[in-house]
Amino acid sequence: MALLRSYVSGHWHVPTAEGAPLHDAVTGEEIARISSAGIDMAAALRHGREVGGPALRELTFHQRAALLKALGSTLREHRDELYALSARTGATKNDSMIDVDGGIGVLLGYASKAKRELPNDTVYVDGAVEPLGRGGTFLGQHIATPLRGVAVQINAFNFPMWGPLEKFAPAFLAGVPSLVKPASQTAYLTEKLVELMIGSGLLPEGSLQLVSGSAGDLLDHLTEQDLVGFTGSASTAQHLRTHQAVVRSSVRFNAEADSLNCSILGPDAVSGTPEFDLFVKQLVTEMTAKAGQKCTAIRRAFVPASLIDEVSEAVSARLGKVVVGNPANPDVRMGALAGLEQREEVRRSLKGLLEASRIVFGDPERVEVVDADAERGAFLSPVLLRADDPELAQPHEVEAFGPVSTLMPYTDTEHVVRLAARGQGSLVGSVVTADTDFAREVVLGAGAWHGRMLVLDRDDAKESTGHGSPLPALVHGGPGRAGGGEEMGGMRAVLHHMQRTAVQGSPKVLAAVTGRWVPGAPRTDSDEHPFRKSLAELKVGDSVVAGPRTVSLEDVEHFAEFTGDTFYAHMDEEAARANPFFGGRVAHGYLVVSFAAGLFVSPEPGPVLANYGLDNLRFLTPTFPGDELTVTLTAKQITPREDKDYGEVRWDADLVNQKGESVAKYDVLTLVAKTR
Amino acid sequence: MALLRSYVSGHWHVPTAEGAPLHDAVTGEEIARISSAGIDMAAALRHGREVGGPALRELTFHQRAALLKALGSTLREHRDELYALSARTGATKNDSMIDVDGGIGVLLGYASKAKRELPNDTVYVDGAVEPLGRGGTFLGQHIATPLRGVAVQINAFNFPMWGPLEKFAPAFLAGVPSLVKPASQTAYLTEKLVELMIGSGLLPEGSLQLVSGSAGDLLDHLTEQDLVGFTGSASTAQHLRTHQAVVRSSVRFNAEADSLNCSILGPDAVSGTPEFDLFVKQLVTEMTAKAGQKCTAIRRAFVPASLIDEVSEAVSARLGKVVVGNPANPDVRMGALAGLEQREEVRRSLKGLLEASRIVFGDPERVEVVDADAERGAFLSPVLLRADDPELAQPHEVEAFGPVSTLMPYTDTEHVVRLAARGQGSLVGSVVTADTDFAREVVLGAGAWHGRMLVLDRDDAKESTGHGSPLPALVHGGPGRAGGGEEMGGMRAVLHHMQRTAVQGSPKVLAAVTGRWVPGAPRTDSDEHPFRKSLAELKVGDSVVAGPRTVSLEDVEHFAEFTGDTFYAHMDEEAARANPFFGGRVAHGYLVVSFAAGLFVSPEPGPVLANYGLDNLRFLTPTFPGDELTVTLTAKQITPREDKDYGEVRWDADLVNQKGESVAKYDVLTLVAKTR
Repeated sequence: MALLRSYVSGHWHVPTAEGAPLHDAVTGEEIARISSAGIDMAAALRHGREVGGPALRELTFHQRAALLKALGSTLREHRDELYALSARTGATKNDSMIDVDGGIGVLLGYASKAKRELPNDTVYVDGAVEPLGRGGTFLGQHIATPLRGVAVQINAFNFPMWGPLEKFAPAFLAGVPSLVKPASQTAYLTEKLVELMIGSGLLPEGSLQLVSGSAGDLLDHLTEQDLVGFTGSASTAQHLRTHQAVVRSSVRFNAEADSLNCSILGPDAVSGTPEFDLFVKQLVTEMTAKAGQKCTAIRRAFVPASLIDEVSEAVSARLGKVVVGNPANPDVRMGALAGLEQREEVRRSLKGLLEASRIVFGDPERVEVVDADAERGAFLSPVLLRADDPELAQPHEVEAFGPVSTLMPYTDTEHVVRLAARGQGSLVGSVVTADTDFAREVVLGAGAWHGRMLVLDRDDAKESTGHGSPLPALVHGGPGRAGGGEEMGGMRAVLHHMQRTAVQGSPKVLAAVTGRWVPGAPRTDSDEHPFRKSLAELKVGDSVVAGPRTVSLEDVEHFAEFTGDTFYAHMDEEAARANPFFGGRVAHGYLVVSFAAGLFVSPEPGPVLANYGLDNLRFLTPTFPGDELTVTLTAKQITPREDKDYGEVRWDADLVNQKGESVAKYDVLTLVAKTR
Repeated sequence: MALLRSYVSGHWHVPTAEGAPLHDAVTGEEIARISSAGIDMAAALRHGREVGGPALRELTFHQRAALLKALGSTLREHRDELYALSARTGATKNDSMIDVDGGIGVLLGYASKAKRELPNDTVYVDGAVEPLGRGGTFLGQHIATPLRGVAVQINAFNFPMWGPLEKFAPAFLAGVPSLVKPASQTAYLTEKLVELMIGSGLLPEGSLQLVSGSAGDLLDHLTEQDLVGFTGSASTAQHLRTHQAVVRSSVRFNAEADSLNCSILGPDAVSGTPEFDLFVKQLVTEMTAKAGQKCTAIRRAFVPASLIDEVSEAVSARLGKVVVGNPANPDVRMGALAGLEQREEVRRSLKGLLEASRIVFGDPERVEVVDADAERGAFLSPVLLRADDPELAQPHEVEAFGPVSTLMPYTDTEHVVRLAARGQGSLVGSVVTADTDFAREVVLGAGAWHGRMLVLDRDDAKESTGHGSPLPALVHGGPGRAGGGEEMGGMRAVLHHMQRTAVQGSPKVLAAVTGRWVPGAPRTDSDEHPFRKSLAELKVGDSVVAGPRTVSLEDVEHFAEFTGDTFYAHMDEEAARANPFFGGRVAHGYLVVSFAAGLFVSPEPGPVLANYGLDNLRFLTPTFPGDELTVTLTAKQITPREDKDYGEVRWDADLVNQKGESVAKYDVLTLVAKTR
């Protein structure tokens, strides 16, 4: 029988013990054996820290993003192999797409978002410059740099591909190597994934390792710069969180535990409305997708008391049409649980739930299946429960991690907000309503108990990705029972893998540390206009001073007439005098920045290709007729684009009048060719 | 003898037991007794959750900020009373200013920063709108809402005023009630502080509670929405972090533990340079301020091997001038430790340090003091150690929490970066150098081990707040040994007290939840121009569509001539054709936004007082001569100012051409009167 391998310390490791058997969820056949025997865990961590980390830190964020993108494309070419293994976990084709395509989507989503939102640099500049003294010689700036450890990623059995990838992508972007430890039941798919990733040759050695089998003494060797990302049960999360090494070294620990997520039907959404149907359909989808083995699945369905009978009937009718069986059969809508043990656990939990509810649909002990043996495969009927007393504890505390959900009635908004909170912290809640006031009250009332809340209605239904789908751009995690962690959320998860440091120093020092010019740092005013320099020649701090130009009353009147902007503060001396900010006629803001551009421009063709925008423009002092304007333009940040022959240059513009007062400050954004 | 009181569940509680004695650090006299006997901790937490939380959540961020400001002013009037109690902790006047004025400064700093950086609202909108579908009907937006629990704040003895205030300010701003538990030794100052705060009548009942004495079973009653903020020893942090209730409910736990912070002298900073003197002076300050009882104090001083003798002599000479004794004597530069137990603990730690170092200055067993009894008061000499082998463990692991520091030599940059990391995570490190390359290498090399890094040089020395001073705008905390937490850092600490939730929905729903217009949400295009509406009348979504206006070649040429912006892309057809983005002559970006303003302006005097800026302007499609422009302006966010008769309105501007393509998108910022 095949032994699953691990990839540690630069090579594929074959276990030195026989290992535990892994079974096909549909047929019960043994697929492979798994064991981590013989792995030197301490050495693997060292390998990540000493080989993977330094190699990753050599790359800029954009270079890492480009590798993620290439990796996503490579995996896409191997989807069929991955689907085939995924089916053995009990997954239907749709289920596999969530895991396989969803995982690839995280790589690609992170790659493109990182290119837009992170600099093409190795340091992340976090937030604004903080002035710390009146004289401007002492400033603060938060930066983020990669943690120097390894991100240990302990995943759950239900998403053997998406799970590792959603943890790997942000760690990789941050410049932190990953060590992936999948749950045993479905580790054969993760092994295949890692084989493809390593085989791609795209990843710097040490940036990805795999431990198939038990973690052994892995956690004992964690130190201050390592991280642990865990997905799984709340009890295992607690166990790992209190591990001696984690506590001793304040190891950054992030947990995502399955939780008793709810879906709420609005009082407006009576039978016959699109929202009623959306609620029913979504509930059935969430019960049956991945056979209900999703930490985001709906466990508690709250409906207005007056609608519970109708909802119960509609959901049951729809569940009645769900074909259960071998995922290879195209008619099958729901496959098997991950294994027989999982099924036993669900049955045990159901017993607890039944103390406070009754079955409306399904039989926990019996299910009709197609193309499979209902007992040898881990099949279970979807089970809809109904708890007419929503104040009882069980529906809010007992989770059956399978195709099981409990319907409960509520009386009013306050009641349902309170019931939602009874889950003690959830990954996600959904509200199905066309009433925006109800949506607002529920989201703001129950938000503190949720990492994500979906409002589903006729307007967004077509594009909605649904209650159960975490997305790379949004945080995934929740307070309390859900583990108290946060994954993804775009660049938030990248920053989770980095240390934020407040740097204090003079402007010159901050510019040196961050690679960005800050006010007060030295400027280089050379003979050559900085717009004549290519991206390769331009240096942060290169600047030009241009002006002065006098703004006359005629200019103001002419501009007003030309543009049509005849606002009284520009045209009517008496009215302008009554304005609390001006005390007399002033020039248009648009006029002064246009004049500034006329001053700093370098008209002939050259490396500067276009002005693509302005940021943070603030008018600070009014310009009165007769004022003289001088502008200083300084190269602030230079961002080459990896895949283009140009890059972005952000210029600091400071426009002052003859008294030296700042009239306007802003950033000018240009595209500049890499070479002349 | 006076019994320290607690303020819980809406009243002042006098302990029901005799309590433990607290002693004057200078004279050894008993000052008061402390006990939390008789306090119903569960009831206090409930009071915070059920009375304090709801009252705070009624207020907007700006209203809470205004209360913090008023509170700061009130406390300022009572500084003399606070100084008098502070002196009994062993603090000199300078030390007291760090604690008392520093604490008031945090309140005021947070108040003004919150007004600038938070909306005048109860919901915080976090980050950008995330498009989740191509059609624009399904969007994501992260929001933050206050946690519904209590922020339990467990403070250290060394800052009985600053400590509670730096935790209270961000919790209060977030809308989360505080329960303060000071360390016993100096709790009499915290009791006075809370008495003044409660007595001010400014705080909503339940938003601040005080437990003087032991925490008893307080932590047992924590639930999912509570937080714990702890400052103190690493071992206590570990104990609290693994408390059953904290782990069970994933209680947000933040620790700030004292750490083995370092200061690094640059190789350029030889004797005679300003940086050499700055290093020496700062080291002595950090050893003696608060008698070295600061978690940010310098414990490890790294100097180039070639400079260690000179540094050692210079520091010793300066330490020799430090007068130790009764803080009431104006000549005294260093007061007493907080108590005799503290002194014993420092002496014990010194024994450990001496296994790897020798004493260069001071005698742990003997010190000359003025106006005090050196044995009855907790006096200790400053002690400078020197460890010639910096590879030994003790100097990097043993902390003497008093006026003790160890000098160590290093060979090169890589070496000192490695030595800095030997502290296993620090709150702060400083680099004293005029060499910006050295500063950059050390900051980027050791940043991952530090929450804050100060680069001190001749340029910022005058304004520098020093190695040891955490500032409200900057994060305070550090990885590993320093506890792995993060306090302050401006609004970051406010967000720490809130739950981030990813809200998914249609544009209409997001607008309803956040109170901000988002693209795709309904617009109200009434007969009345929105610029004619006062702040009170204006609604988010109010909009005006204006245009079209044709841009002619004559307009472009005229604008070029008028402003001086004769960039070739506007003036030279042939050259413009060669530009990769334009393919022909285009209008100036400044011209099209000026024309847009001419279209949407409402010229007569009215509620709109001024345009104070533009944000996020992006030019998306070039405008060619002959194009027709139409602009839609929509009220996006309305922010009344609490203390003014006007507020800010942010407008979404969307400028399109005759094909419906977006030419430019930006935010227009205006000031609008509250009434007509």
